[in-house]
Amino acid sequence: MVRRVLFPGRFQPFHNGHLKIVNRLASKFDEVIIIIGSAQEGFTCRNPFTAGERIEMIDETLRASGISRDKYLLIPVPDIHKPMAWTTYVLGMIPRVEAVATGNPHVEFLYKWLGIDVVKIELYNPHLYSGTVIRRLMMVSDTWRERVPEPIARYIDNIDGVERVKRVCRNAC
Amino acid sequence: MVRRVLFPGRFQPFHNGHLKIVNRLASKFDEVIIIIGSAQEGFTCRNPFTAGERIEMIDETLRASGISRDKYLLIPVPDIHKPMAWTTYVLGMIPRVEAVATGNPHVEFLYKWLGIDVVKIELYNPHLYSGTVIRRLMMVSDTWRERVPEPIARYIDNIDGVERVKRVCRNAC
Amino acid sequence: MVRRVLFPGRFQPFHNGHLKIVNRLASKFDEVIIIIGSAQEGFTCRNPFTAGERIEMIDETLRASGISRDKYLLIPVPDIHKPMAWTTYVLGMIPRVEAVATGNPHVEFLYKWLGIDVVKIELYNPHLYSGTVIRRLMMVSDTWRERVPEPIARYIDNIDGVERVKRVCRNAC
Amino acid sequence: MVRRVLFPGRFQPFHNGHLKIVNRLASKFDEVIIIIGSAQEGFTCRNPFTAGERIEMIDETLRASGISRDKYLLIPVPDIHKPMAWTTYVLGMIPRVEAVATGNPHVEFLYKWLGIDVVKIELYNPHLYSGTVIRRLMMVSDTWRERVPEPIARYIDNIDGVERVKRVCRNAC
Amino acid sequence: MVRRVLFPGRFQPFHNGHLKIVNRLASKFDEVIIIIGSAQEGFTCRNPFTAGERIEMIDETLRASGISRDKYLLIPVPDIHKPMAWTTYVLGMIPRVEAVATGNPHVEFLYKWLGIDVVKIELYNPHLYSGTVIRRLMMVSDTWRERVPEPIARYIDNIDGVERVKRVCRNAC
Amino acid sequence: MVRRVLFPGRFQPFHNGHLKIVNRLASKFDEVIIIIGSAQEGFTCRNPFTAGERIEMIDETLRASGISRDKYLLIPVPDIHKPMAWTTYVLGMIPRVEAVATGNPHVEFLYKWLGIDVVKIELYNPHLYSGTVIRRLMMVSDTWRERVPEPIARYIDNIDGVERVKRVCRNAC
Repeated sequence: MVRRVLFPGRFQPFHNGHLKIVNRLASKFDEVIIIIGSAQEGFTCRNPFTAGERIEMIDETLRASGISRDKYLLIPVPDIHKPMAWTTYVLGMIPRVEAVATGNPHVEFLYKWLGIDVVKIELYNPHLYSGTVIRRLMMVSDTWRERVPEPIARYIDNIDGVERVKRVCRNAC
Repeated sequence: MVRRVLFPGRFQPFHNGHLKIVNRLASKFDEVIIIIGSAQEGFTCRNPFTAGERIEMIDETLRASGISRDKYLLIPVPDIHKPMAWTTYVLGMIPRVEAVATGNPHVEFLYKWLGIDVVKIELYNPHLYSGTVIRRLMMVSDTWRERVPEPIARYIDNIDGVERVKRVCRNAC
Repeated sequence: MVRRVLFPGRFQPFHNGHLKIVNRLASKFDEVIIIIGSAQEGFTCRNPFTAGERIEMIDETLRASGISRDKYLLIPVPDIHKPMAWTTYVLGMIPRVEAVATGNPHVEFLYKWLGIDVVKIELYNPHLYSGTVIRRLMMVSDTWRERVPEPIARYIDNIDGVERVKRVCRNAC
Repeated sequence: MVRRVLFPGRFQPFHNGHLKIVNRLASKFDEVIIIIGSAQEGFTCRNPFTAGERIEMIDETLRASGISRDKYLLIPVPDIHKPMAWTTYVLGMIPRVEAVATGNPHVEFLYKWLGIDVVKIELYNPHLYSGTVIRRLMMVSDTWRERVPEPIARYIDNIDGVERVKRVCRNAC
Repeated sequence: MVRRVLFPGRFQPFHNGHLKIVNRLASKFDEVIIIIGSAQEGFTCRNPFTAGERIEMIDETLRASGISRDKYLLIPVPDIHKPMAWTTYVLGMIPRVEAVATGNPHVEFLYKWLGIDVVKIELYNPHLYSGTVIRRLMMVSDTWRERVPEPIARYIDNIDGVERVKRVCRNAC
Repeated sequence: MVRRVLFPGRFQPFHNGHLKIVNRLASKFDEVIIIIGSAQEGFTCRNPFTAGERIEMIDETLRASGISRDKYLLIPVPDIHKPMAWTTYVLGMIPRVEAVATGNPHVEFLYKWLGIDVVKIELYNPHLYSGTVIRRLMMVSDTWRERVPEPIARYIDNIDGVERVKRVCRNAC
């Protein structure tokens, strides 16, 4: 019986904190189901990268970190704006999981309401390693690169991602 | 602790079979949560009556049958066309229930998948007492009246419901 | 002919101001149709309580206040994010009403645009009695209890609602 | 004060019967608001032509018939699958109209429920002039051309529309 | 072959900057397809005017400016909250266009991602001529009138639009 | 540069014809992006298996056939019921592809309309190898097993899938 854990996030972008968590989960479970949330989004200030781009860059990062595709699935899931229904919406789209790993109280409450086991994630320096913080950094400095795995920074450079964030966030933030 | 059971249906229209079920459930549980499904519909061949009309006529019928409002809630729920998410969509909108009562295998599978108790309903002569059968009868004969509680027939007459069914079903069926 | 009035709100949570309004409406109309808006929501900062929980706590409060279920219906209605269509979406899901009671200018404009009678509600000290104000109070003080009917405070305590609000609002507000 | 009438349809395709109706309405009202329904559809058996194509071909036909753009607006409206809400969804998107012209009982019931005036359309030989009939004809014979205005036939030929209908309907019908 | 350009906006309200752009586009293309975005909205602080009202007032303005209806189409398009899909959603609903004219980086990125030509618009004094700025002005001063074409100001006065903005924005802004 | 092809289907269930196609595509492209369509569905007659189950059983089959996870991605995509927008909805959720492989004329038309290369698939005995045909067979005979890869049959047996199909299709088909 394959033991799987669900790990949902928006990954805008995937950062060092996320990588630590996936590593930890991959050591405890047979498979990590990584949910790319808000998958319908892209080219906005809050969600500058498309789900396809996020899949590509996370996949490259995990493989570069020595984690084989046998250890994870990358699954994009669009928003439905119905929180109470979102949990089973996600669960119906993925292989059966034993638990949900999250550091987000909203997500934790929703899965507990459903009776699903929740693995509480100790976030690693959330004031440094958070998508929101990193996107803001991208607008003003080069130091965002230190907070993401190297393949993420390279991918973002290749798609001219810093310029993208600057332009779509000019009026939005 | 109030013991409640969920009873979902479209009730197009509510018929003698439905009334028997509600009576049975009301004797076993403190409260029956009656879900009026496809609540966004109305004036179509498959859903000729609006959710508001269905609430009115079921409410009149139950009270006329001596079932007080303390024993039931009538809750309209629109379709979301996402079956795997629909179960928790419904559960999030209603008071906590102990079980779901249904004779519909699709609904039964969905709630069991979720780990919810299902009370299997013995349908009472489903070839006679079914919304589809009764709507078809309405197009050709007066005998549909025998298959619904008297307050339902009266309500349908008051809103000129037979003519409505005939007209919206002419090309649709 | 039953004379009904529609009273829409999110009731996060139902407070003393709401109870005054329901009392007033119940004395002028045969039935008050209480719409629990944003019914698909729950466990968020803006909508911490599910529609099911809101139905339960309002129902307990009204009965405790001596208002029988014969005087009101509690109807959850999810958002459709289409304001111009929302009015008839609601009207189609409920028994026929004579008027809409609201203190919200947006809702008032929408129903007037449709030609429906609007009963303008005099809000009772809106700076004290407002869901937003009360949810903020819950994060810092015990005085929120004075602004809601006693059965609401008890229900929220039973579900550990203050802790819930604190946790889901930490990053969101 | 401009007197306008709403005329909704799917126009798959616009045929001689539609043209007669628009002519009649254009003589009685200052402006005809032609709603292109199911506007999100295209390349299916039931809706082979996109809303954009339908706008183009109807616009060319009306001008070729000597009806100036001052007499009509072509407005695409997507389905929302919420019939009770669809009426005000449409009304909110268009200039104020005095009446709705329709030969469809479902649409007639919905607008009457809302209290809007309905102009009942006498359909012109509906067994010959109907989108469904004409699409079926397109699969087997050239005679469909006699049932649509000449600019419609020419436009459909230019986009290779007959072949399109044949291919998307092979398994669907 | 008709050469068309797509010009999307919310036009809350249509102002002098918009008129300059339409004039410029109308001189370079045969037809300007003006998309009225967020067409499902109305009577909110961010979208006080319905799509129908926006169509009416823009149509009156363009004709008053000597631009005939032969030069433009006014097409309302509701939001779908799926940015990556929105581009083809729009393109499927309108006659074929050669390019998209926009000053919005988000829209520019989305259409370029799709391989569509984008005409970058030089905004005319965006700090003065912007819907957001003008709506805020409406709440406090009469000078908003100088920033919109005269028929827009007249239309807004006729529907008592300043009062509407003030009321729906009181708590929302 | 990774060369990828998109292969969309509902896979209710994945059969021998699908396996042949994936094998062929995997030999011509670096990666096959397998889209599990109608991913929100499950426990219905037309879509008896959830997306999660479909992912599990296809994944087991491909690995059992000697195709490594390095050669494919399994991506569930829910329906949006907006065909013209569906193409970019899908493309935004997946890594960049060079072409789309399909035997479905509707899908072919939609991607061609967008200017995307389409690889036309020669279906292998579609009268034998089709989801619809196989689901019907499951209701009456054991011969459906011959038409699907062995791991698919085993998985369906493990979840008691034949009984499921029989029950949800009893009234639906």
